[in-house]
Amino acid sequence: LGRWRRRNTEETLPHCVDNLYSKGNIGNLQAAAGEGDQPFTGMWFADSDVHKTLEAALWELGTSPGDTRLKEFVDTTAALLARAQQPDGYLNSYFTIAEPDARWRRPNWSHELYCAGHLIQAAVAGGRVGAHPGLLSIARRFADLLVERFGPGGVEEVCGHPEIETALAELYRLTGHRPYLDLARRFLDLRGRGLLGEGRFGPRYYQDHVPVREAREVTGHAVRQLYLLAGMTDVAMETGDRAMLDAAERLWDDAFGTRTYVTGAHGSRHREEAYGDPYELPPDRAYGETCAAIASFHWNWRLLLATGRARYADEMERVLHNAVAPAVSADGRHFFYSNPLQSRTGHEGSGEEAASRRLPWYSCACCPPNIARLMASLPGYLATADHTGLQVHLYGDASLTTTVAGRTVRVAVRTAYPWQGRIELSVHGDDVQAPWTLALRVPGWCEAYTVSVDGEQMPASARDGYVRLTREWTPGTRVVLDLDMPVRQVRAHPRVDAVRGCVALARGPLVYCVEQADLPSGAVLEDVRLDPAAPITAGPRADLPHIPVVLGARGLLADPGDALYTAGAGRERTSGPLTFTAVPYFLWGNRSEGPMRVWVPVTTAG
Amino acid sequence: LGRWRRRNTEETLPHCVDNLYSKGNIGNLQAAAGEGDQPFTGMWFADSDVHKTLEAALWELGTSPGDTRLKEFVDTTAALLARAQQPDGYLNSYFTIAEPDARWRRPNWSHELYCAGHLIQAAVAGGRVGAHPGLLSIARRFADLLVERFGPGGVEEVCGHPEIETALAELYRLTGHRPYLDLARRFLDLRGRGLLGEGRFGPRYYQDHVPVREAREVTGHAVRQLYLLAGMTDVAMETGDRAMLDAAERLWDDAFGTRTYVTGAHGSRHREEAYGDPYELPPDRAYGETCAAIASFHWNWRLLLATGRARYADEMERVLHNAVAPAVSADGRHFFYSNPLQSRTGHEGSGEEAASRRLPWYSCACCPPNIARLMASLPGYLATADHTGLQVHLYGDASLTTTVAGRTVRVAVRTAYPWQGRIELSVHGDDVQAPWTLALRVPGWCEAYTVSVDGEQMPASARDGYVRLTREWTPGTRVVLDLDMPVRQVRAHPRVDAVRGCVALARGPLVYCVEQADLPSGAVLEDVRLDPAAPITAGPRADLPHIPVVLGARGLLADPGDALYTAGAGRERTSGPLTFTAVPYFLWGNRSEGPMRVWVPVTTAG
Repeated sequence: LGRWRRRNTEETLPHCVDNLYSKGNIGNLQAAAGEGDQPFTGMWFADSDVHKTLEAALWELGTSPGDTRLKEFVDTTAALLARAQQPDGYLNSYFTIAEPDARWRRPNWSHELYCAGHLIQAAVAGGRVGAHPGLLSIARRFADLLVERFGPGGVEEVCGHPEIETALAELYRLTGHRPYLDLARRFLDLRGRGLLGEGRFGPRYYQDHVPVREAREVTGHAVRQLYLLAGMTDVAMETGDRAMLDAAERLWDDAFGTRTYVTGAHGSRHREEAYGDPYELPPDRAYGETCAAIASFHWNWRLLLATGRARYADEMERVLHNAVAPAVSADGRHFFYSNPLQSRTGHEGSGEEAASRRLPWYSCACCPPNIARLMASLPGYLATADHTGLQVHLYGDASLTTTVAGRTVRVAVRTAYPWQGRIELSVHGDDVQAPWTLALRVPGWCEAYTVSVDGEQMPASARDGYVRLTREWTPGTRVVLDLDMPVRQVRAHPRVDAVRGCVALARGPLVYCVEQADLPSGAVLEDVRLDPAAPITAGPRADLPHIPVVLGARGLLADPGDALYTAGAGRERTSGPLTFTAVPYFLWGNRSEGPMRVWVPVTTAG
Repeated sequence: LGRWRRRNTEETLPHCVDNLYSKGNIGNLQAAAGEGDQPFTGMWFADSDVHKTLEAALWELGTSPGDTRLKEFVDTTAALLARAQQPDGYLNSYFTIAEPDARWRRPNWSHELYCAGHLIQAAVAGGRVGAHPGLLSIARRFADLLVERFGPGGVEEVCGHPEIETALAELYRLTGHRPYLDLARRFLDLRGRGLLGEGRFGPRYYQDHVPVREAREVTGHAVRQLYLLAGMTDVAMETGDRAMLDAAERLWDDAFGTRTYVTGAHGSRHREEAYGDPYELPPDRAYGETCAAIASFHWNWRLLLATGRARYADEMERVLHNAVAPAVSADGRHFFYSNPLQSRTGHEGSGEEAASRRLPWYSCACCPPNIARLMASLPGYLATADHTGLQVHLYGDASLTTTVAGRTVRVAVRTAYPWQGRIELSVHGDDVQAPWTLALRVPGWCEAYTVSVDGEQMPASARDGYVRLTREWTPGTRVVLDLDMPVRQVRAHPRVDAVRGCVALARGPLVYCVEQADLPSGAVLEDVRLDPAAPITAGPRADLPHIPVVLGARGLLADPGDALYTAGAGRERTSGPLTFTAVPYFLWGNRSEGPMRVWVPVTTAG
């Protein structure tokens, strides 16, 4: 994670900034400010890319306050936003320069509140890291306008693309100004009453078909659904709305029990970028939008905060490593919008929506800056603290600081995770004269582990997903959590027809895949069969120095014949034994454009 | 087929006529004729539904010239078209009343030539059955305008939705007027030169990415691709263009070797209603548009005429029984637009594009009138004749008439096909004083059959898919072809990942499916497993009197557990043995809306 964060800082974020200029997003705002005459360029919600990049830069400033290039981008952009803001607080370049008469006229498709939400989230990031109060004023002026227009007694409308709900809840958290939270709740309460109309795809597409507390399944556009659930969880937490929280957890059960890829990706359909039916999880046509993975991470974080349940932290880990990480290239400057689990021989990948390789930017460029902001804010997601002590959820080199019984405590974490399961922690800081609990997450995939304190094995066993060590901590105490990481052969629920007879290889939190690039010449990836009984090796390999742990499996190469359909017993012929390589899925497509698959058919019995 | 044709005449066609009135299609043309003030209603290509219905009515008049209701519809509609036609011959209600300034301005999306093509096909049908020469004049006036505008030296443009090519070739066949054929060829020659631009989905969507003679794979929107191929085959036949015919057969190999469902349906993707990558054939998200199945039937017919190869007739049979037939309900008045091979438990089927049940009409209503015109014209597709004699391709009760050596020959066919394989033919007519050949297709699925003439077994063996009986035929000679029809367990090519470990049951030309309606209460369709070694029964059943042949299979009911993903060996648990029923796929969904699947997982070995 540390290396990825550095790459995000050094490559992805500057790449996003460059594209805001070259693709016209900044020019749109300049035109809205009355400077320059660029006609509106890009998607009508292009401002949101600016806001997300700004948010990323502000999180970065939190850890690197001295970065002058970042600071200049933030200052310049915030000043531009101030000039582009209308006298009443409204701020949206599309509806200022392209269609001024349409302002607030198309709630189901305009993304105006969606863009407002991202502006607010940038301002909240600034507030959290103590940077740029000017931006916060801009956001609050817009938020106050929203309260005036849409608040109690105001217009009864919701946004076709949820996002404003979680943003307003966050703004409330930062400012303590209750009307923001009330408006977030009002937007949620008004949903499911048909206010958005049919739109292009019907009310299920934007989750307006049922009141949020009554929903029983995730539906429609996955990013919209997940942003909405994040907002629901925020509001439920802040208002103690049990019915709302129950609904969110019920939808979690549905989403993660029947409609989530083994990578943590969401969205089974290209059409409408949507959830499918239960167990409809095609690997080749997985949509798995990068933004949906990020939204899932955000939502699971909120559920973790609301409930403390380890399953939500497990999911943050899975989705981060296997659904967000694959979206970024090794160079940090190329991205996938959709993240399929299989790319076939002969795949036609010239379109943006099913690209054969990561692209430098997209006509709908929501994903790259979303990655930038997530990774810039990552340190805030590693651990939580409460009155009992510190809970560590995600593992990576880090220095965690909190306050226990009025004293500052620092826990240093050193690990080669996710490649190795050994996690070393050392407790530092003020001498706290009272016992407190260090809770360490034991991932759901882990079946065996050991814990030692200052070299002494502890009989600790995880309860509810966490090993809890309660003691008076002497500064300098060393804890080692060692998670067993055998290679796992993962099978899907038998109702997931699309991967019947296949296994996915996984080790620790990482899902692996097989790439054409690693097959012998002449072998077709689709013909590879894994022998599930043969041992699978795991370790470094001289010819793949950039991958710390490569898997080696044994199996067969099938000889499939030509006929598309045949009658009869159909025992598969084979053309011989095969040993083959699997690499971490998140690294796929960094060497060539060739075919890839996560789910590998097993040799038929006998 | 006979019963289906009657239902088409008595139910489907009148239903289409009714909807043309109630949905505004007729009103559009009235407005274009300056009568009434209905604003344009429906899709901008709504005229094509009128033309297709008119075509259906004209084919019907060919067999029932005395049907006064049909005749009245034809006369009224043709007269309306005459009044709606512009002085220069142009005829399109959308571009007459809704966007007159946009006429000929958006070739990639306007469907103007597509609509013209359907008008021409209606007129050709009229010409073939000797009805309504007035309509032919209307169509020729429009076609002459097209020749003037788009012909040699004219505008270099093609239509984003192919259809005009085959229509013009047919109009040439009817009239002998060469400029129509030349224009069809010109439209084909101009394709693949980027004239259509990027459009919404890129040039592959409407097959404008490569010159037609150079294409190596089917791409994009399936109906567009198949209509284009029909036109290519027509023009190749009429002009002797070998390169064009080679391209068509090459694309057939690609389409039928890697991208066709076991039902004969085409279109693996909802997004863009398109072909997928090779072997991408998901049963649940099969698009399988009804119009694509009809287009495939039309294209295969043309290839059959061009080459005489039985594989094209085999395909006509498969697609008719298993991809067109399922689109119509038992009552003839409800239709599927897309024809999936699986509908899951929990399927959200409220949208038109993935409906849980057949709907009475569609906002894009291309399919219902397309079915009507195909079924009305069906008698013309049963057999062909050439100088050697008569070739029978499709089996159903029929009376086939042709001329051999200047004499009229009639062959009567009686059969319970597709339920039974016994086909009885009797030769009647003038006494032909020379030997001629009666060729009978032996379907590709058939592995054993017998032929007898006047009760005497013949040692005949099929060559190239046909049994050929050459003799001097005495009037009254009786031929019996008896095709063996065991139940077949069909398996897909192993690269069709989506149905790995499954079989489809078939008998004769019919593909079968399992419906929830036939399972014991409490059993979930997704948990049914077929024992491939157990015998499968086939026959009538008292509780399903409307289905002449029902299949009975044995297997297990799996107990799938809850976890979406599990690590480990994963031998499937079962909750007990099961006997279950399979019914013809084309009849699915006529009893209830419940889940259905064509591909049934087999019990895992051991």
